[in-house]
Amino acid sequence: MSEKSLGVGKPDTQILGVLGGMGPLASAQFMLRLTLLTDAARDQDHIPAVLWSDPRVPDRTAARMASGEDPLPALLRGISGLEAAGAGAIAIPCNTAHGWFEGMQSATALPILHIVDAAEAELLRLGVTPGPIGLMGTAGTLAMRLYQERLEPRGWTCLVPTEEEMQRLVSPGIERVKANDVAAAYAPLAEAARALAARGARAVVLGCTEIPLGIAAGPALPFPVCDTIDGLARAAISWAKR
Amino acid sequence: MSEKSLGVGKPDTQILGVLGGMGPLASAQFMLRLTLLTDAARDQDHIPAVLWSDPRVPDRTAARMASGEDPLPALLRGISGLEAAGAGAIAIPCNTAHGWFEGMQSATALPILHIVDAAEAELLRLGVTPGPIGLMGTAGTLAMRLYQERLEPRGWTCLVPTEEEMQRLVSPGIERVKANDVAAAYAPLAEAARALAARGARAVVLGCTEIPLGIAAGPALPFPVCDTIDGLARAAISWAKR
Repeated sequence: MSEKSLGVGKPDTQILGVLGGMGPLASAQFMLRLTLLTDAARDQDHIPAVLWSDPRVPDRTAARMASGEDPLPALLRGISGLEAAGAGAIAIPCNTAHGWFEGMQSATALPILHIVDAAEAELLRLGVTPGPIGLMGTAGTLAMRLYQERLEPRGWTCLVPTEEEMQRLVSPGIERVKANDVAAAYAPLAEAARALAARGARAVVLGCTEIPLGIAAGPALPFPVCDTIDGLARAAISWAKR
Repeated sequence: MSEKSLGVGKPDTQILGVLGGMGPLASAQFMLRLTLLTDAARDQDHIPAVLWSDPRVPDRTAARMASGEDPLPALLRGISGLEAAGAGAIAIPCNTAHGWFEGMQSATALPILHIVDAAEAELLRLGVTPGPIGLMGTAGTLAMRLYQERLEPRGWTCLVPTEEEMQRLVSPGIERVKANDVAAAYAPLAEAARALAARGARAVVLGCTEIPLGIAAGPALPFPVCDTIDGLARAAISWAKR
């Protein structure tokens, strides 16, 4: 731990490292929810954190679906920066980046809180038990089967949008949030979520951190939705208070 | 610039350093507004930033008004961390911390964007020209005359809450926000702002970054209010895009 780290002189305090910027609105919202979900009466009760917000990380979906630049070097640079700042664990408020989870985890001794585990804990907190759930996410997250491979052995089954729904509703909705237009994101994202519920999903996982921002911009949906920003914030608070 | 810095390999890119955590909700809101006020169509158009959120910085008002611990060492630790991360300038979304501005600025070669200058630019943007304005802030900010000394030579005069209004309305309102209870902060903060307008303020500066969060929790006030979170975010965007 360097002289310049947030933890200097206070080795008992746990500092949360947040690898963000993917997108920047989602990581700002993560910091907001981390703060609001913490039981605190004054500044000094809150969790020390360093947010490394690098929106220049190469597009994760483009890397997986096309021949886009590999994001791993930029992700590892962020992790090194968070280590230097004295972080004790890392949270990454971007689902698609978890496609590089093993590469990141093998490069650091710090625990990385896995967003799919956090989503599962959030489902259980909402009273949703293992069974069929809807899963919305980027084309990259769905192609990598990030949720299916981690959750299906635990009894969950994932219903996903059709190719047509991805192209017409989910991907454009995510893009609207990344362009700061959350109001325009609501209608397509809500339509995709409703279609999954109609197909038998008992809850819908908003498995891309842009999606909760769009869904929050309109009327609440009439079925449980799992906000992966909130889920990851709760996982980080549990880690900090353990 | 170290290997671990956010700017590694991209010396032309300007990274914003944010010294936050004072309070954590205000600095998260700063990151959100920084993102939303940026003209961007995709992640990669946004401003790279590192937020150093250290809510353990000793209370600034207690240090100034009573015999509280000096916050300067913790502030300088944060600035060193942001320098190590490759920041090109520093924004501090806490008005009261600007009482230690000279001590911070003399310790770093990086420009620190002064929140009072940002507030003045925000007033002008709102169409408010120099003259009588209301000023709300912590007891520390008011006692240090942070706004008066910087703005009065430029033709502004600051009307401040009475001692009774500070103790009954402004200080408790700020405390409610730091405890995450923004809904309860609205009534006292709005009453204090209305009293300043009634005394002749043509606009009211929300000169503590907790105050805009409380004021946003209820109906809009019928006179211009200067949000120092938005003002500082606009100053940071101007710096990044210059």
